[in-house]
Amino acid sequence: MNEIPKKFQVTPADVNGFMNSLSNWGKWGNNDQVGCLNYITPEKRVSAACLVREGIAVSAAAPLPTVAAADNPDPVRHLMIATGLDKESFSSNDYFAFGHHAYAITHLDALCHIFHKEFMYNGYSREKVTSGGAELNSIDAVRSGVTTRGILLDIARLKGRPWLEPGEAIVPDDLEAAEKRAALHVDRGDFLLIRTGRFAYREKNGPWNAQERLAGLHASCLPWLHKRQVGALGCDGVSDLIPSRVEKVRMPIHLVAVVAMGLHLLDNADLEALGAACSERMRWEFFFTLSPLILLRGTGSPVNPLALF
Amino acid sequence: MNEIPKKFQVTPADVNGFMNSLSNWGKWGNNDQVGCLNYITPEKRVSAACLVREGIAVSAAAPLPTVAAADNPDPVRHLMIATGLDKESFSSNDYFAFGHHAYAITHLDALCHIFHKEFMYNGYSREKVTSGGAELNSIDAVRSGVTTRGILLDIARLKGRPWLEPGEAIVPDDLEAAEKRAALHVDRGDFLLIRTGRFAYREKNGPWNAQERLAGLHASCLPWLHKRQVGALGCDGVSDLIPSRVEKVRMPIHLVAVVAMGLHLLDNADLEALGAACSERMRWEFFFTLSPLILLRGTGSPVNPLALF
Amino acid sequence: MNEIPKKFQVTPADVNGFMNSLSNWGKWGNNDQVGCLNYITPEKRVSAACLVREGIAVSAAAPLPTVAAADNPDPVRHLMIATGLDKESFSSNDYFAFGHHAYAITHLDALCHIFHKEFMYNGYSREKVTSGGAELNSIDAVRSGVTTRGILLDIARLKGRPWLEPGEAIVPDDLEAAEKRAALHVDRGDFLLIRTGRFAYREKNGPWNAQERLAGLHASCLPWLHKRQVGALGCDGVSDLIPSRVEKVRMPIHLVAVVAMGLHLLDNADLEALGAACSERMRWEFFFTLSPLILLRGTGSPVNPLALF
Amino acid sequence: MNEIPKKFQVTPADVNGFMNSLSNWGKWGNNDQVGCLNYITPEKRVSAACLVREGIAVSAAAPLPTVAAADNPDPVRHLMIATGLDKESFSSNDYFAFGHHAYAITHLDALCHIFHKEFMYNGYSREKVTSGGAELNSIDAVRSGVTTRGILLDIARLKGRPWLEPGEAIVPDDLEAAEKRAALHVDRGDFLLIRTGRFAYREKNGPWNAQERLAGLHASCLPWLHKRQVGALGCDGVSDLIPSRVEKVRMPIHLVAVVAMGLHLLDNADLEALGAACSERMRWEFFFTLSPLILLRGTGSPVNPLALF
Repeated sequence: MNEIPKKFQVTPADVNGFMNSLSNWGKWGNNDQVGCLNYITPEKRVSAACLVREGIAVSAAAPLPTVAAADNPDPVRHLMIATGLDKESFSSNDYFAFGHHAYAITHLDALCHIFHKEFMYNGYSREKVTSGGAELNSIDAVRSGVTTRGILLDIARLKGRPWLEPGEAIVPDDLEAAEKRAALHVDRGDFLLIRTGRFAYREKNGPWNAQERLAGLHASCLPWLHKRQVGALGCDGVSDLIPSRVEKVRMPIHLVAVVAMGLHLLDNADLEALGAACSERMRWEFFFTLSPLILLRGTGSPVNPLALF
Repeated sequence: MNEIPKKFQVTPADVNGFMNSLSNWGKWGNNDQVGCLNYITPEKRVSAACLVREGIAVSAAAPLPTVAAADNPDPVRHLMIATGLDKESFSSNDYFAFGHHAYAITHLDALCHIFHKEFMYNGYSREKVTSGGAELNSIDAVRSGVTTRGILLDIARLKGRPWLEPGEAIVPDDLEAAEKRAALHVDRGDFLLIRTGRFAYREKNGPWNAQERLAGLHASCLPWLHKRQVGALGCDGVSDLIPSRVEKVRMPIHLVAVVAMGLHLLDNADLEALGAACSERMRWEFFFTLSPLILLRGTGSPVNPLALF
Repeated sequence: MNEIPKKFQVTPADVNGFMNSLSNWGKWGNNDQVGCLNYITPEKRVSAACLVREGIAVSAAAPLPTVAAADNPDPVRHLMIATGLDKESFSSNDYFAFGHHAYAITHLDALCHIFHKEFMYNGYSREKVTSGGAELNSIDAVRSGVTTRGILLDIARLKGRPWLEPGEAIVPDDLEAAEKRAALHVDRGDFLLIRTGRFAYREKNGPWNAQERLAGLHASCLPWLHKRQVGALGCDGVSDLIPSRVEKVRMPIHLVAVVAMGLHLLDNADLEALGAACSERMRWEFFFTLSPLILLRGTGSPVNPLALF
Repeated sequence: MNEIPKKFQVTPADVNGFMNSLSNWGKWGNNDQVGCLNYITPEKRVSAACLVREGIAVSAAAPLPTVAAADNPDPVRHLMIATGLDKESFSSNDYFAFGHHAYAITHLDALCHIFHKEFMYNGYSREKVTSGGAELNSIDAVRSGVTTRGILLDIARLKGRPWLEPGEAIVPDDLEAAEKRAALHVDRGDFLLIRTGRFAYREKNGPWNAQERLAGLHASCLPWLHKRQVGALGCDGVSDLIPSRVEKVRMPIHLVAVVAMGLHLLDNADLEALGAACSERMRWEFFFTLSPLILLRGTGSPVNPLALF
């Protein structure tokens, strides 16, 4: 595991500080439930659409895993209700059952997904999330989807490597170096995607327990994300570096980004095809769209995000 | 129920004839699994993106129903795995279980969904769909989603009515009249959406057993759809008129469109917001995108399609 | 609906009183989790076994309902994992998913199933039942099953009627009259079964919303149950009369029997075959056994109880 | 792994022969669906009840596993519908979902569970088992449960060992030696239970992939089982020795016992407590009862069998 440069080291007290200094609570009103998605303006969407120049679509989702694996102990249950073998069936039909907050499922977290002390994003009480679901900050707040400019910072490739090692940290200097190499600037309302090469590593080395070790953003990136006013953040891991290298705070990115900033996180995006597509074109921006299922009172949704070139 | 004009009446023998005359089997090769989506070219996608002028997104999905109703006897099971009430939980988490081929769930049918005699689209044997799922024509063939020009033919509104009656038939003349009113022409590779006003009717009159009665396209529309080379078809019902008015053939649109033509159907789209958005702008075309979950070997997927103006 | 005789009328204050006067909290120690099952001694089991004289077994369960009905809006999901149609399958296999606390499923309630204020049976905090399940009073406390003398008080038959009307109340006088007719005495540790004829009524008149109206025990039976020291209680309804005829208390039997007395309730037993078997023999006692699935931390279990003559 | 004595070696051809020589097809009529359970007569049940002398009940079930393990990749899904933490809930409630034909779940196989060529027990076509479930030989044929004399042949203990090694074979000589030691004779209609000590081994050594290696009955026991006319067979493994030591036949016991003989198999019974109870009493017979859930058209059921002393 790479060392965290001294200037980027983060203590639990720093994380606590971020909960205030990076907070967007109240910024979009006391009733807001979508947080940084407010950065994505109609103008932003229009200019993003102008990035569709070739008409090529690339998915950023991994197939939903239906078989248990080291990074996926609770796979999706897929059962057939009717098949072509049933003599009189006019149609086939099936059934899917799963919890999508898993380390091998591409999904978007709702803002009700993470708690800090008694609260969730915008200061709502965590007690609004009961056995009946989330009364506030649920995924159905994002029913019109997310459409904006996508930017891929392919940290692995831009470092000339096939992947970051599981547990390898990304710090703000890496983000800025990647920006420079990509000749662009992460801006207000962008959907920022971070490629660590996790799925390439998995392809080569097999699945591992991702809950124990994943490359990702070190907590020192939080002020940077806040300053750049990104609209949403995605990663082929879970954005968070695991282990976090911040004592006693398991997932500082989830904690601060979701609860304080109101930043939606796209977890476990498969960025292999997208990384290749960007590299081939030497172009790291594209039209990006995803639309969660309208799961009422839900804590997130599996998604199949699309990048269009 | 309105009468079917004589010139549009369809017999079972006609439907049988359509299975040949409207067939696209082999048209895109013997290994094709996406059918009419082949009509959607990169150029089509680029010109569709140019329709994004205001940066406004409108969802065409109904929320996933979690409560049983007359049109939804098998609702989505939504259960919490962790809540804000659990003292030590850092996060909330949930679980969803459902069969999406239901009359109240917005979903895209895969081409393996419908059988005719021993076959499915492109002449593949129906026996390729077993308890293990669909080996061919499954929804994961559409993993890069569908992105193209969307056109809404708002049949109800263009007739000056809030909705068509359940069971009311739409015939080709209606489609062409609607085109004329909308001042556009349904073209190769378009995603054609048909609004019958079903969700407005439901809002007003409550849910009813949609398996017994739904407004939709009469079988006489099939040659028209084929001639226009639409890329995909969606409806706020199930595209098919129910009852079909074709003796002994319950769902001729599903049968011919899916099996013979290889046309993907979007069922139970909620087109109320989209109808209003179009009407307000007097503009019935838009950028349209949907991306099914990558459910391996699955027979379809719930979706949340987006229209962008 | 029959009137409740004045001497048996019960007020909310009476119910509150029962919570104390009929309480068994602490009676079997501060760690007890099985309540009145403690009344069933080894001797009781031995003498119950002597009731097996003919070697005839009769089930007291209704088939698990897999189709939605008025009394069963959330049926059991039954899906095949492998069938005989799958060419290479050596075996068939299936999957069941359900919540068993339903008005059409024969199940045994665990003592954690009901709360009163901040508590459940034996004074344990209701907060011991979290998203992780029940830490105390869960169904796995009954892992060695229940085996004892069963007694059927067939109230309907002993009144000379095929069934009680939905909503018809049973009061202590009815229980004692039934005892007299059956020439037996409900005693310590018996499994008392009450037949209202619900399933006969359902067979004849079709399913109805049982949450609104069911024949059952009026709250005035509670002191009687307590005095007789029954080991467990079952009914073809849910034991509780619905509506309860006690203002503001929806299910006084569930409340007092489960929380105060620690009495396990068997809900929705199908007592048609058992009623006929008893009547034919003019014998209302039998060996009775049921064994809940060992569902760790669960709130109850579907069961298939057996009566042996 | 112990060697199979020459006289007990079994070839694929022998297994094929057993399909005829040990067949009970037609023995109880062409419509029979319960096979060897016919051996359990009312008289048998009455005399079994006489074995209840102490009134002590012992469960033979393992708790339903809710956590993934090496022998249990598809654990039971247990989710709460309502908890004690939900402020206004009167009751707790939960949901279970699972396929019970798993190597760590105590369950009874229905006679539709296994196929041989085109058939299942009694010569019914395997095509009677479709996506709609089993039309014949389903578990609901056993709705009155199984009640008879139980006999435990505790092979491990009677050999003076804590357990048999995974993969260790039991041959007819072992069964007869165990009978002798237990001073009893396995007879018509008995529920025969075989203890290999699997759960003791698991307790000590942790879970392993039981699909690869389990102690159990070698195929040479089949004629013995047939001759003795046992009513049902259970084991703490899956009865079958794994690997079977019969070339190309993975599960000869399942194959011949279920399909040819119509013998119900109880898989993965936890026989630790029962073994101890028998050993303590030096008594290997008891009253034994189990009652499958009435899962219509199901291929088996999880059960919690009880032994009574």
